[in-house]
Amino acid sequence: MPATNAALEKWSAVESYLKAGEGRFLDELKNLIRIPSVSAQPAHNDDTREAAEFVRDDLTRSGMKAEIVETAGHPIVIGRSPHVDGQPTVLVYGHYDVQPAEKADGWATEPFEPVEKNGNLYARGATDDKGQFYTHLKAAEAWMKAGGGLPVNVVFLIEGEEEVGGANLEKFFAEKAGELACDYAVISDSSQWAPGVPAVTYGLRGLCYLELLVQGPKTDLHSGMFGGAVANPLNALCKIIASLHDDKGRVAIEGFYDDVAPLADWERAEFAALPFDESAFREVLGVKELTGEAGFTTLERKSARPTCDVHGLWGGYSGPGPKTVLPAKAGAKLSFRLVPNQDNRKVADAFRKHVAKVCPLGVTYEIIDHHGAPGVVVETDTPGMAAARRAIDVAFGREPVLVREGGSIPVVGLIKDHLKVDTLLLGWGQNDDNLHAPDEKFSIADFHRGIAASARFFAELAR
Amino acid sequence: MPATNAALEKWSAVESYLKAGEGRFLDELKNLIRIPSVSAQPAHNDDTREAAEFVRDDLTRSGMKAEIVETAGHPIVIGRSPHVDGQPTVLVYGHYDVQPAEKADGWATEPFEPVEKNGNLYARGATDDKGQFYTHLKAAEAWMKAGGGLPVNVVFLIEGEEEVGGANLEKFFAEKAGELACDYAVISDSSQWAPGVPAVTYGLRGLCYLELLVQGPKTDLHSGMFGGAVANPLNALCKIIASLHDDKGRVAIEGFYDDVAPLADWERAEFAALPFDESAFREVLGVKELTGEAGFTTLERKSARPTCDVHGLWGGYSGPGPKTVLPAKAGAKLSFRLVPNQDNRKVADAFRKHVAKVCPLGVTYEIIDHHGAPGVVVETDTPGMAAARRAIDVAFGREPVLVREGGSIPVVGLIKDHLKVDTLLLGWGQNDDNLHAPDEKFSIADFHRGIAASARFFAELAR
Repeated sequence: MPATNAALEKWSAVESYLKAGEGRFLDELKNLIRIPSVSAQPAHNDDTREAAEFVRDDLTRSGMKAEIVETAGHPIVIGRSPHVDGQPTVLVYGHYDVQPAEKADGWATEPFEPVEKNGNLYARGATDDKGQFYTHLKAAEAWMKAGGGLPVNVVFLIEGEEEVGGANLEKFFAEKAGELACDYAVISDSSQWAPGVPAVTYGLRGLCYLELLVQGPKTDLHSGMFGGAVANPLNALCKIIASLHDDKGRVAIEGFYDDVAPLADWERAEFAALPFDESAFREVLGVKELTGEAGFTTLERKSARPTCDVHGLWGGYSGPGPKTVLPAKAGAKLSFRLVPNQDNRKVADAFRKHVAKVCPLGVTYEIIDHHGAPGVVVETDTPGMAAARRAIDVAFGREPVLVREGGSIPVVGLIKDHLKVDTLLLGWGQNDDNLHAPDEKFSIADFHRGIAASARFFAELAR
Repeated sequence: MPATNAALEKWSAVESYLKAGEGRFLDELKNLIRIPSVSAQPAHNDDTREAAEFVRDDLTRSGMKAEIVETAGHPIVIGRSPHVDGQPTVLVYGHYDVQPAEKADGWATEPFEPVEKNGNLYARGATDDKGQFYTHLKAAEAWMKAGGGLPVNVVFLIEGEEEVGGANLEKFFAEKAGELACDYAVISDSSQWAPGVPAVTYGLRGLCYLELLVQGPKTDLHSGMFGGAVANPLNALCKIIASLHDDKGRVAIEGFYDDVAPLADWERAEFAALPFDESAFREVLGVKELTGEAGFTTLERKSARPTCDVHGLWGGYSGPGPKTVLPAKAGAKLSFRLVPNQDNRKVADAFRKHVAKVCPLGVTYEIIDHHGAPGVVVETDTPGMAAARRAIDVAFGREPVLVREGGSIPVVGLIKDHLKVDTLLLGWGQNDDNLHAPDEKFSIADFHRGIAASARFFAELAR
């Protein structure tokens, strides 16, 4: 860092403000969490709005120009710091909506009443994403209240449809790309590598999610009277799905690997250097063997190689005991995880062609294209990435590892498409935070470290 | 038939009795049907007993020695005609229990209140099996009341666990084989070939019903975070099931066809001669193509060749929209239809060996053996078969066709094993009688023709 960075000279005042504010920040986060802003359930529409208003008011109190923007669904909150000439602009993305949660799902405590236990905050939204995005609001507040204003330009975009994959955000990006112009986007909605090992995620897999419906006879038949003479849609479905992989664990669809960007040597070295205990991993999963595409390691397979997984199968009788039905219908949900430079629409087309080729005689089928996102990797040698790594080093006491994650964050693709910038994925969570599951949690220490890292990042980024 | 058959000389008296009794026989059948003797539902245990008592009392009124034999489950009714020296003994098997039925399942009328419509009697149990087995009780009654006694020895065995596959009947056969000694068994629990085309079924397929449970990781995982590195039990299940057939539609399990008795030339000729319109059949099923084992016709495939059908698949997410779960478990129910001389236990073993060979790495599995029955064909050139064919010719006005059916009637195997005799399958039903479904029906004319055929059969069989 340059010794002449004016922002860094104000760092100790900001740091003191953050230290003094810790208790209040956590109380405020708890209040945000208590709003059950479940985007999937219309009964909670008042709550999603209340969460949006909470975020807008918080930004306003810190001195931002904040507003609620209506969409066809849940509103988007936009906040802007006072303009600073000659400094880069950062777009901070987050989402105030949460997954559904009921205590009866298996929660130890009420999901919307945050509870502190063993250094963690337990509640729906604790890590996904209220606890994580709120770190940036508190970091900005510290600069506004104690540092003489933010040293860079910050635009907050906190939306309410991340958990329902709504199309409204894309529409918003398409319409407002000019107003959202920035140099970097920042998202904290992912995980560290492990406790004590912070990470910056530079790659995400994309997704092509499809549903395959197979129709045999128009009604269920008795397998004794008809079996052997009429194609069985369950057998046919299995034939189609089995044909999607070859014996080497590779996806056996023509052209599937054509656009796959190969892993660079430095990436494979980085993967190999990550602290990872394969036998402990097997133990946690409860499996005797790990399998996947031949020629790649477990970490490469689960984060940097494309895959095909079936998510659901159904058809016929699944109750107790035997029933000799030859069913009319069968179905499967499946997806392909994609890596750069695979295009999800192209993969969906290749799947269609493949099914047309392998579908057994005597059944018909329909393919539903659910949604998709391309795989992304971001540049790792930019000033923004360097600033983020230094900030995390300061706040977490350890240089972050660079990782690629196997999941998808579709907004990263939208930002790339519409704003033409890379996203810095600064995840403060842990892999066992139970997101989308009962007993979701977030480390309280990581919450405060995340705030400090965000505040430091703004300073490191200032010229 | 020999002109000296004493029984046939009494035929006209029996025939008159049958004609005069038609209305009463139908009323009595309706009373039997009104007892909701659903064996699967313990709430109906009083009803199954009432049905057994109804049958016992009916037999007693006709002059049989009838009794209720307790089992660990629903009781068995045994009735015996007065002994006739030097004449063969016929065991008539039937079952008084019925499948569950609720009007809400889609019935046009109350399932246990029989309704006459278009010449049919609509009710649960109308054809399966109350209406069919009751024909033999009324035929016997006619001989007892108007013919001077039955011309042959008849043992009635009417049980109450056919619809639940109870093990109590097998135990009964094992213990009482001596008391049940007979020359032929007769069962009316199947169908004619078509309206106006009566049939004698001389072959049934057997069954080997299995359930395959596949376990991957011990809990559901996120497919983004783990997909590609951890075996997916749904994909694995599809691989296993797809491996069960080859490209010719043959079962691809080693040794599966080893014991299969080939179709005789006369059987293939009989199949080819049956009135069967393949395009009408496709139309009814709503399929564009009929498929199956290469080298066999549709009728051969569905009734005289062994098969493998999946009856149910489950695992993962099947609700609306996408969910990117990599599930812990998957399962399938499947069965093999067997033909003589396949042994269901041997087929189950071959399946186990096959799965052990093809199961993908990274998952474990369990196989549950539900139940089974060997395939059977009965001798077609016996005096009993000749008597049955002549009797049907007289009562239905047309010589019956000889057919093999694709379904299984496990009691035929029990009778062969324990009593060492063949069963004559004299079905009075039609293929569209909706057995096990709403709006079950039985042709009233066929009910009376069945009674007449049974009565004539006893005469034809007498020496």
